[in-house]
Amino acid sequence: MKQQVIAAACTLALGAAGAALAQQKPEDAIKYRQSALFIVGQNFGPLAAMAQGKMPYEKDAAMRHAEIAAFAAKLPWDSFHPGTDKGNTKAKPGIWENLDDFKSKREAMLAEIEKLPAAAGNLDSLKAQVGATGKACKACHDEYRSK
Amino acid sequence: MKQQVIAAACTLALGAAGAALAQQKPEDAIKYRQSALFIVGQNFGPLAAMAQGKMPYEKDAAMRHAEIAAFAAKLPWDSFHPGTDKGNTKAKPGIWENLDDFKSKREAMLAEIEKLPAAAGNLDSLKAQVGATGKACKACHDEYRSK
Repeated sequence: MKQQVIAAACTLALGAAGAALAQQKPEDAIKYRQSALFIVGQNFGPLAAMAQGKMPYEKDAAMRHAEIAAFAAKLPWDSFHPGTDKGNTKAKPGIWENLDDFKSKREAMLAEIEKLPAAAGNLDSLKAQVGATGKACKACHDEYRSK
Repeated sequence: MKQQVIAAACTLALGAAGAALAQQKPEDAIKYRQSALFIVGQNFGPLAAMAQGKMPYEKDAAMRHAEIAAFAAKLPWDSFHPGTDKGNTKAKPGIWENLDDFKSKREAMLAEIEKLPAAAGNLDSLKAQVGATGKACKACHDEYRSK
């Protein structure tokens, strides 16, 4: 019960971008955020490849990838429960020591990735938004994800 | 090249509910569909618990879980490339031997899960729609997923 209260409080602290998943088991919480971020990566990858000319730009595919990436990017944040820096995860303990900074980097990333679907309709705007989004992803990975 | 053509043809055969991910490596395709279906399960779980009275019904949480489950349920289907019944997967070879039936069971599931967000606003309608959706999930798991 106490753990649930702490988890709920942390969910509030993190900002609850997704659904309340405070009841997740630690291993499920880790798997959930990894699943969501894998989906983000698999859809951001082709967008980056299009932006870099490594893949032909296709408007419909780009918009769909952007829509999925932007949606999935909202999901991981309720699953960073205290104590889930143990186990099969690259999440660094620093996340829970610097929750405000983690939250601020997350919000900065969400602000950029939410612009991707509109930007994906045109190759020039896609290029710019892929750059801004990738930078925002990297800022958090550099600080809070183990190699 | 030939493999890409086959994968693209299969994507068309499967109906391309998500983005064109024909370029995924087999291990990424498997991980992608597992990630999406894990997210579906983690959001369907609390809805089933609410429907069964094992968890208090909360309208906002229920609607958000339903929205995420319905969105994530659209994602796995472009990642059932031919040959991806090997490796870390429970997908049975029967999927590729009975593509029409697999597709039909998938469409039946999507038709039910798409009704969940609207149904989740009320406990009675949620109960009915959780039942119909769970049945549609199970029909495919019974036939095409290993234990």
